[in-house]
Amino acid sequence: MAGLAVDGVQRVVLHPEDDPLALACGRTLAPVEVAFTTHGTLDATRSNAVFVCHALTGDAEPAGPDGWWDVMVGPGRPVDTDRFFVICPNLLGGCQGTTGPSSIDPRTGAAHGLRFPPLAVSDLVAVHRRLLAHLGIERLHAAIGGSLGGMQVLQWLLDAPGEIANAVMVCTSPRLTAQNLALSAVARRAILDDPDFCGGDYAAHGVRPDRGLAFARRLAHVTYLSEEGMARKFARAEPPGWEREGDGARWLGPAYDVEGYLEHQAEAFLARFDALTYLYLTRIMDAFDPLGPAARVDPAARALCLSFTSDWRFGPEHGRRLAAGLRAAGAGTVVEELVDSPWGHDSFLLAVPDYLEIVRDFLSSGST
Amino acid sequence: MAGLAVDGVQRVVLHPEDDPLALACGRTLAPVEVAFTTHGTLDATRSNAVFVCHALTGDAEPAGPDGWWDVMVGPGRPVDTDRFFVICPNLLGGCQGTTGPSSIDPRTGAAHGLRFPPLAVSDLVAVHRRLLAHLGIERLHAAIGGSLGGMQVLQWLLDAPGEIANAVMVCTSPRLTAQNLALSAVARRAILDDPDFCGGDYAAHGVRPDRGLAFARRLAHVTYLSEEGMARKFARAEPPGWEREGDGARWLGPAYDVEGYLEHQAEAFLARFDALTYLYLTRIMDAFDPLGPAARVDPAARALCLSFTSDWRFGPEHGRRLAAGLRAAGAGTVVEELVDSPWGHDSFLLAVPDYLEIVRDFLSSGST
Repeated sequence: MAGLAVDGVQRVVLHPEDDPLALACGRTLAPVEVAFTTHGTLDATRSNAVFVCHALTGDAEPAGPDGWWDVMVGPGRPVDTDRFFVICPNLLGGCQGTTGPSSIDPRTGAAHGLRFPPLAVSDLVAVHRRLLAHLGIERLHAAIGGSLGGMQVLQWLLDAPGEIANAVMVCTSPRLTAQNLALSAVARRAILDDPDFCGGDYAAHGVRPDRGLAFARRLAHVTYLSEEGMARKFARAEPPGWEREGDGARWLGPAYDVEGYLEHQAEAFLARFDALTYLYLTRIMDAFDPLGPAARVDPAARALCLSFTSDWRFGPEHGRRLAAGLRAAGAGTVVEELVDSPWGHDSFLLAVPDYLEIVRDFLSSGST
Repeated sequence: MAGLAVDGVQRVVLHPEDDPLALACGRTLAPVEVAFTTHGTLDATRSNAVFVCHALTGDAEPAGPDGWWDVMVGPGRPVDTDRFFVICPNLLGGCQGTTGPSSIDPRTGAAHGLRFPPLAVSDLVAVHRRLLAHLGIERLHAAIGGSLGGMQVLQWLLDAPGEIANAVMVCTSPRLTAQNLALSAVARRAILDDPDFCGGDYAAHGVRPDRGLAFARRLAHVTYLSEEGMARKFARAEPPGWEREGDGARWLGPAYDVEGYLEHQAEAFLARFDALTYLYLTRIMDAFDPLGPAARVDPAARALCLSFTSDWRFGPEHGRRLAAGLRAAGAGTVVEELVDSPWGHDSFLLAVPDYLEIVRDFLSSGST
């Protein structure tokens, strides 16, 4: 397993042409290649593995100064890479090295586009579990994720009782509300309506639906922050006299701090993300609803359900429903935490001290 | 004043070429034509006039089955047209008969487009007051409006102390938050980036930025409702088996009730509204901030500041700041009401019993 010590992103084909992935929609997919990183060292009993599931726009690198979850994963962090063997893949449908709708279909030599099959969270988990088998690991000390990442942890608890000893689900939901559905639909529609979307075959036309993807990102950023968080983050003042020049075009352009912020975030996002992946991953969340009456989890599994007070994407009520659903599904230990933070849904990516301490304590006290 | 009894929308040029409107931005505008309706009869002492200020997407007809505020204005309604003489114009910058950015500039024979001057709420109020003078009315029993309509009432209180005896401001704000600014910026950017916007000259090109305007409307509808309101309004269930067909394009299309609702609302909006007006009127709200230290109102004026519990566009905190600002500005009577409603910002247009009763009582008890 020397390969496990290698730093940087590794790639592995988990489903070759002759061993396709059977999807929830009824179709199959192959090849399925996965990009992932590992940090730390797997112990002799293979009992210290922690699986990190990323959210909508994450990738395979959570740790380090350029990692998307540096506050959570690394030496001395709550997910301590001096103690745990940490695995983090880019998820199925992604655009950061793992097979997704913009990957080349070897049968056609072109990007899949909308011919890529519909996905479900259970498909993402199936690929995670195949990666785990590839690494020779049978049981996880912990799986952890926020938002869509937490949905994968929940699905995993249900699909493979006994495989996760400690499950950490941060600001996630067992079932989207109509408002959640609506916000995602508005963002997707902006991408689908972009003339440069070309029915999903934009790569073949040498263009990108950047306008639509930028709208989606601007909207998402507003919904990831709280009203209080934005008020703290941005000065309200406009450039003095900006409206008195009498120029309609200039008057309508970005003028307030928050407008410049949204433009910057949109541009940075375009440089690293793909529109088809945005469509597919948001749609996966819409249909997620795994805690039916038949849902069962391993009674020995410990679950942490953590929400943030100012999160209005997957807020406290989502966390309460998640915890209640896990108890109803037979979970023996469900720790429900509500952390006070003004930073909204984004809080799960930020250095919120109480939040990090709670996760650290939960993972440290968890027996394997 | 026989004309005042005429039903239906009337039009009057309030600022002809030789008497242009002086705007806050320093430019002038002429001609300024205003579309307005009146309901009821002006009494002998001209003391029963009530001025209705509409919000972002309203028009000059608040009453009747097709009126935008039928729950509030009409015979026996809180704004009782059997008792009051009710005046409601389409506002400056609008697209329902009053001069706006898509009106024809007689000097060029083409629509103003982005050459139309930047506007401020004080400009809207200046035109309201000119209409009042045209009707031979010196003092209002009341002025009433919600959202942007309430901003006009507030500005009017400050610009013309003594002209309004009773001011009703519903779910409005004296100053937008960074989140308010951001949501409006996202919507405007969708319109500005629509290839069919043509730099504001879409009419000359025989096209309309319908994609951008539809995006703005979809987003607005999500923000006008609350999470609870949407949950009550829409079933969550998707068409059975819809995701199992394996068709990516169909899977991504509208499937949930709330998605169909947003599409319907967007289409209906495109049939009646104009993109340039949407840009101008939202930008006017961004800069609104009239309650500075120098602000003064008539101590004799009575003010009702009403908010709704579930409104997260201009919620209770906005109402509290408005009431506090009016008291600081010298208002003698400030009635502050918070009404419990699950319908979010939209509540001000709906038959919420407590809300309508409060407005009825306030207007009935108000001396002129």
